[in-house]
Amino acid sequence: MPERLGPPRATPLFGRVALIGLGLIGSSIARAARHLQLAGTIVAVDRSEETLARVRELGIADEVTADAAAGVKDADLVILCVPVGACGSVAEAMRPGLKPGSIVSDVGSVKKSVLAQVEPHLPEGVHFVPAHPVAGTEHSGPDAGFSTLFHNRWCILTPPDGADEAAVERVREFWASMGSNVEIMSAQHHDLVLAITSHVPHLIAYNIVGTAADLETVTQSEVIKFSAGGFRDFTRIAASDPTMWRDIFLHNREAVLEMLGRLNEDIAYLARAIRWGEGDKLFELFTRTRAIRRGIISEGQDAPDPDFGRRRGDQ
Amino acid sequence: MPERLGPPRATPLFGRVALIGLGLIGSSIARAARHLQLAGTIVAVDRSEETLARVRELGIADEVTADAAAGVKDADLVILCVPVGACGSVAEAMRPGLKPGSIVSDVGSVKKSVLAQVEPHLPEGVHFVPAHPVAGTEHSGPDAGFSTLFHNRWCILTPPDGADEAAVERVREFWASMGSNVEIMSAQHHDLVLAITSHVPHLIAYNIVGTAADLETVTQSEVIKFSAGGFRDFTRIAASDPTMWRDIFLHNREAVLEMLGRLNEDIAYLARAIRWGEGDKLFELFTRTRAIRRGIISEGQDAPDPDFGRRRGDQ
Ligand SMILES: NC(=O)c1ccc[n+]([C@@H]2O[C@H](COP(=O)([O-])OP(=O)(O)OC[C@H]3O[C@@H](n4cnc5c(N)ncnc54)[C@H](OP(=O)(O)O)[C@@H]3O)[C@@H](O)[C@H]2O)c1
Ligand SMILES: NC(=O)c1ccc[n+]([C@@H]2O[C@H](COP(=O)([O-])OP(=O)(O)OC[C@H]3O[C@@H](n4cnc5c(N)ncnc54)[C@H](OP(=O)(O)O)[C@@H]3O)[C@@H](O)[C@H]2O)c1
Repeated sequence: MPERLGPPRATPLFGRVALIGLGLIGSSIARAARHLQLAGTIVAVDRSEETLARVRELGIADEVTADAAAGVKDADLVILCVPVGACGSVAEAMRPGLKPGSIVSDVGSVKKSVLAQVEPHLPEGVHFVPAHPVAGTEHSGPDAGFSTLFHNRWCILTPPDGADEAAVERVREFWASMGSNVEIMSAQHHDLVLAITSHVPHLIAYNIVGTAADLETVTQSEVIKFSAGGFRDFTRIAASDPTMWRDIFLHNREAVLEMLGRLNEDIAYLARAIRWGEGDKLFELFTRTRAIRRGIISEGQDAPDPDFGRRRGDQ
Repeated sequence: MPERLGPPRATPLFGRVALIGLGLIGSSIARAARHLQLAGTIVAVDRSEETLARVRELGIADEVTADAAAGVKDADLVILCVPVGACGSVAEAMRPGLKPGSIVSDVGSVKKSVLAQVEPHLPEGVHFVPAHPVAGTEHSGPDAGFSTLFHNRWCILTPPDGADEAAVERVREFWASMGSNVEIMSAQHHDLVLAITSHVPHLIAYNIVGTAADLETVTQSEVIKFSAGGFRDFTRIAASDPTMWRDIFLHNREAVLEMLGRLNEDIAYLARAIRWGEGDKLFELFTRTRAIRRGIISEGQDAPDPDFGRRRGDQ
């Protein structure tokens, strides 16, 4: 079942949309918004001239600029698509250009910290509606993006208490138009859910790959050679952008450490079962985890095909 | 680049090959051996009548039987394709049928324990050449197998001291014919290498999925919904066969616990870095792990395409 975007809109949802940061996520939004005609004008704002030049070549924005305040001028919707740790400084830089009544949103993988960083910089009358599309790949930069990235994926909105309802609704519609299922929850809860479904898995994957690289008894070339036994899947995750992930861990510290604590308890339980030969405890867990896998496949969040490190469909 | 087997041999490598256990691995060997004409006759031995009936329907063996001793009679090569914990009892059961001068091998994911379980049952003059194809999927049973499973994957042989060289060479040739790259090492070293590249990653994946399922603060349906952020990849691994994996952990206890100890130290280091906001330590690790990923892709042990939970090539 190929992923397809719907037909373009007859009238755009927003007049002017400014995207700040044209990496994987920003450039995917640009592509989807352009394809679907969600914006009258798309403005690409990026600190790097190289990225801006590439955006021009790709033809995925109408205007490009390195000046955040100039870029957001007259924009009806501004979306920060930069690492979580950069949201505060970018918000400060764009502030002078923000139009009263406009909506500011973001795509950061952590929500409490982004709210704390961005809100103080927003003038009265500008609506902040934080968002997090739970969709991605391990690649970065403007060439990694594609228009269907958000299709059949969830996008979580975490509007602060008292957020403008009309603004929330317009952001919801923006993401729904790109094919996302939109869910609303508190920033606090978001950070906990993502800690266990995304942040801790990434930390563990980075960690296993790092541990393996440091062993004296097994060489790095052996680790690479024999990676098809499971390790391979961890290295894919552990190839994600270092800056983005450093920021996520530093900015979701509390929830990540809490989940890591739980995980450690459970690892100790399994280690003890292995040491004492308690096969039934292992068997019980290994049976239980299959049910979750089935849930993920039946909800369309993964393909059922086995993954054995080859392009699918090669058999 | 589709995976292809070479042309069939003009003369088979072995007269009679008996496969005991026609699951994912056993049935994949049957398919490949038949396609490549590696055996004059393929005998399928399985404890379950249901599996034998399915093997007959699939037409992947010449003879089928539930009687191990009868099945291995006159066989030149016998391959145990059962869970690691069943190797001893299967060896005992087949013993009366073994032909002097024949070769016994296996495909178990642990090697020291299989050697200890099987060798005592083999009569004088029968050569034991343990093997482990480092290739698999998370699916089980005779329908899950396919003939190219071992293509461009490693197969590790762990012949005991003083093993018959000609027998080792014939097993090497058998696996090389199915497209595997064959490596020889000690059972001890094998178990250490696999502990870090396969067993511990699986344990951690099962563990994360189990921890997530048990949380009070995050519901199971949230975990499933938002799995695209990384968790998904762990659930694939954590869907593997519970019996096979229970046996692996119980039979590779020492190496698994040693590697798990190392991993725990490294997790503690990362947790501390997060707690004290030491972003540079995180960044350093996250950069280092990318190099290993590049090694795996350049050695052909994984495809470079991003995996975002859809059938590849859908974009
Ligand atoms: N990747 C995912 O899977 C994923 C999924 C959901 C949400 N997110 C979130 O989306 C955001 C962007 O991630 P991405 O994957 O699109 O990353 P990316 O491909 O690496 O792009 C990051 C963008 O941010 C810019 N940037 C980096 N540091 C900056 C700074 N200090 N000041 C201003 N701009 C800066 C980069 O500029 P240059 O042009 O100079 O590189 C680039 O345009 C992050 O907050 C991340 O948490 C990511
Ligand atoms: N799956 C992988 O990724 C992989 C990779 C490399 C090596 N291996 C190793 O290959 C071996 C087989 O794994 P698999 O993936 O092929 O498993 P599988 O698909 O579950 O098949 C297991 C086979 O063993 C039989 N069996 C199970 N318990 C038995 C017992 N107590 N006595 C006799 N026969 C028994 C089963 O009989 P039924 O017909 O009754 O089910 C079935 O034929 C294991 O040692 C495993 O460690 C697996």
